[in-house]
Amino acid sequence: MHARPEAWILSIGNELLVGRIVNTNASWLARRLTFMGFNVSRIITIPDSIDDIVLEVRRGLGKVRVIITTGGLGPTHDDVTLEGIAKALNKNLILNSEAYEMIKEFYNRRNMPLTRERIKMAYMPEGARALRNPIGSAPGCIIEVDSTIIVSLPGVPREMEAIFEEEVKSILEIIAPKISIVECSLKTRGIPESSIAPFLEHIAKSHSNVYVKSHPLGFELDKPILELRVLVSATSEDTAKGIARSIMEDIIREVLKLGGSTSSEYCV
Amino acid sequence: MHARPEAWILSIGNELLVGRIVNTNASWLARRLTFMGFNVSRIITIPDSIDDIVLEVRRGLGKVRVIITTGGLGPTHDDVTLEGIAKALNKNLILNSEAYEMIKEFYNRRNMPLTRERIKMAYMPEGARALRNPIGSAPGCIIEVDSTIIVSLPGVPREMEAIFEEEVKSILEIIAPKISIVECSLKTRGIPESSIAPFLEHIAKSHSNVYVKSHPLGFELDKPILELRVLVSATSEDTAKGIARSIMEDIIREVLKLGGSTSSEYCV
Repeated sequence: MHARPEAWILSIGNELLVGRIVNTNASWLARRLTFMGFNVSRIITIPDSIDDIVLEVRRGLGKVRVIITTGGLGPTHDDVTLEGIAKALNKNLILNSEAYEMIKEFYNRRNMPLTRERIKMAYMPEGARALRNPIGSAPGCIIEVDSTIIVSLPGVPREMEAIFEEEVKSILEIIAPKISIVECSLKTRGIPESSIAPFLEHIAKSHSNVYVKSHPLGFELDKPILELRVLVSATSEDTAKGIARSIMEDIIREVLKLGGSTSSEYCV
Repeated sequence: MHARPEAWILSIGNELLVGRIVNTNASWLARRLTFMGFNVSRIITIPDSIDDIVLEVRRGLGKVRVIITTGGLGPTHDDVTLEGIAKALNKNLILNSEAYEMIKEFYNRRNMPLTRERIKMAYMPEGARALRNPIGSAPGCIIEVDSTIIVSLPGVPREMEAIFEEEVKSILEIIAPKISIVECSLKTRGIPESSIAPFLEHIAKSHSNVYVKSHPLGFELDKPILELRVLVSATSEDTAKGIARSIMEDIIREVLKLGGSTSSEYCV
């Protein structure tokens, strides 16, 4: 694949580690970042713990271009994401006036007082910018240190997605590489993964900007079902599509040669 | 919470990092491990890369009691999990005779030859034990080094779950602490998270073996909906249930006092 800036997703929350919640936020963000041209190289889920946040943020700092955190921005005592990030960056956690105005407006509109727990959500690392939350009370936060942009989003999926779309996307587009990503997928029936493996290895080795993978999906009437997936990066969408289509045709030919059948082909 | 042995889940696979697949394996394993008494302190998703596997396995080695990996056991060129683990442990990757017999039996029964790609799945770190896969072709693998047990399971959910239930569970039960975990959950309507926050903090501070958390679920007719969740560990199930019930009653009283209503209460 083309050289792509690295991105990490840091999912913060005990509820993920006890398995009560499936981490759909991480896959949503990973998908968006991948198609924007970033190379998502880690998704790390950690507890609501300042020490763990410090450790993982410092591990990525100055090394990856973007770290997006989700969770831990709320009003409760265990929402410690921004305290952890401030500590990781050796910065003070201060009352952010932009964030304070957003929170004041949110509660004013609902005729609710500004309690200690609500004002807590306006404390951000020194030098950070607040990101407007169009749905809930907790603003997001963005700060750049050592050429790493750290974006903090709430854990509630609708709020996380809304802040990403309305505030974060346009900032990340500036640093995203000028490449297009096309993904194609195909289901095959009647071929075990081990039979198509040599051909997929041949494709992977003969194209430098192509990623190809097989996923066994189980059996139907004792016939193995696979999904084959091809990810192509190129400097234009047309080029990427052209390469992807030609590879898909090669794969279909090979599948038929091996005695299998194909279905559900699509490209995005 | 009681002192619980730490466990990490290492999810290996580019398909997770491009967001094509939601990591349901990790939440399934996290749930099972939590209720067995383990403290799942990390879920780390990494690419199909030997260097990344070496780095993360070494980070946990000798520090956490259990590392469970998923994915990367198959026949394709990018299935490199066991090669990565062998390298992390400074052990040779050798043909495991147990695994070889399992694979031979699997393909013999289907009248399919033992190709290079199929035999590849029998290569495991020296000293490892193979774990029978009752559904698919790739056996799991288990090895203990520096008091860390490393279990490798396939990425296909049905195969992962089957090997865990039939082979891994009984091994982990030997080292699991003799504690019971009870989880209770409750939905509230009409109270913002910031209003119940001080009371939840009070509960968390007055019980050492209790974990309590609020999850905003959005709004219904402009009324905030929360899920409140209580996790209790105790030396017997009856004690854990008793503590959990008494805390749930306290919470319900406080919710009513704050003008909210409750529903969907359950304990498991």
